[in-house]
Amino acid sequence: MLYPNKIKKDFQKVVNHSNRGMDLESLINEANKYYLLNDLAVIYKKPTPVTISKIKTKDNNAKEVSGYLKQKSTLDYVGLYKGRYLDFDAKSTINKTCLPIANIHPHQLEHIKRIINHQGISFLIIEIKDKYYLLKGEDLLEYIKQGKQKNIAYDYIKEKGIEIKLEINPYLNYLKAIDQLIEGENK
Amino acid sequence: MLYPNKIKKDFQKVVNHSNRGMDLESLINEANKYYLLNDLAVIYKKPTPVTISKIKTKDNNAKEVSGYLKQKSTLDYVGLYKGRYLDFDAKSTINKTCLPIANIHPHQLEHIKRIINHQGISFLIIEIKDKYYLLKGEDLLEYIKQGKQKNIAYDYIKEKGIEIKLEINPYLNYLKAIDQLIEGENK
Repeated sequence: MLYPNKIKKDFQKVVNHSNRGMDLESLINEANKYYLLNDLAVIYKKPTPVTISKIKTKDNNAKEVSGYLKQKSTLDYVGLYKGRYLDFDAKSTINKTCLPIANIHPHQLEHIKRIINHQGISFLIIEIKDKYYLLKGEDLLEYIKQGKQKNIAYDYIKEKGIEIKLEINPYLNYLKAIDQLIEGENK
Repeated sequence: MLYPNKIKKDFQKVVNHSNRGMDLESLINEANKYYLLNDLAVIYKKPTPVTISKIKTKDNNAKEVSGYLKQKSTLDYVGLYKGRYLDFDAKSTINKTCLPIANIHPHQLEHIKRIINHQGISFLIIEIKDKYYLLKGEDLLEYIKQGKQKNIAYDYIKEKGIEIKLEINPYLNYLKAIDQLIEGENK
């Protein structure tokens, strides 16, 4: 009698989970597809940078590539929304108290500074404790400047970030958070 | 006595050629590097899109990649200048009367339309007859809409385009042409 119960529990766990079991990158890609189809914004993931050493044309005309991964010096996503330049990254953690920032490369921080200097919008989308936040580049840089911590405290993310509540279509409708961010700029 | 003269002539030929023998892509990359170093703009070439099928870590920790080239559906360069989103491509032709447009993919034209709709700046940098022009996305789309030509006439490029004269540092200082483009918008 325990076996069916166990199945039921697992099933419920998946269905009730509001992100539909999608990881952060899939949620962002799904939202970007929705924004493109509905002509709301043009936002896309940058291709993974590869130093191509060889291209071979196959019989079916496909181009087979070999090469090496390059280190990323920018962020993963770039886009255009209401005339504004967007440049951002997605960071997910299973940690419940903080986001480890060891995996944000110094080149990426430099890039964020530049984007802000030139009046672009740069931010992180953070997944922590089954919640989603947009943290402005300015607030990220401020936190790193202040402390020697290798982690951004969840409390700081909650205080400074804009929460992105999951919706139906798209699930992670983060343009709303960007609207709030732009509103905040104009105050 | 002929030998030293010949050397001198070849030397002069190289020095006098205003683009220093650099192809269009190199000229743009050189300008982008200059803009980044002098904090004038953040503009970069998008990585070539590759569908990665395998990543192997080598002894020296390099990541060897194999995969396939994807078809490009956007343009080659993206950037941020004075708060504006830029998205553009470089096209070079040895033809003296026109730029063949067969190599502009319909997906790229769609992309240009979207960028314009969302108040971004999209354009081509064209090299023709040893001259350089910035042709606005709007003018490119207008030309394609009007005619059935597979080529953009040089006369049209001269009439509608903004000429980019070669300078010293950087050689192809195309931000000036973008300034002109922005000025034109505000009229």
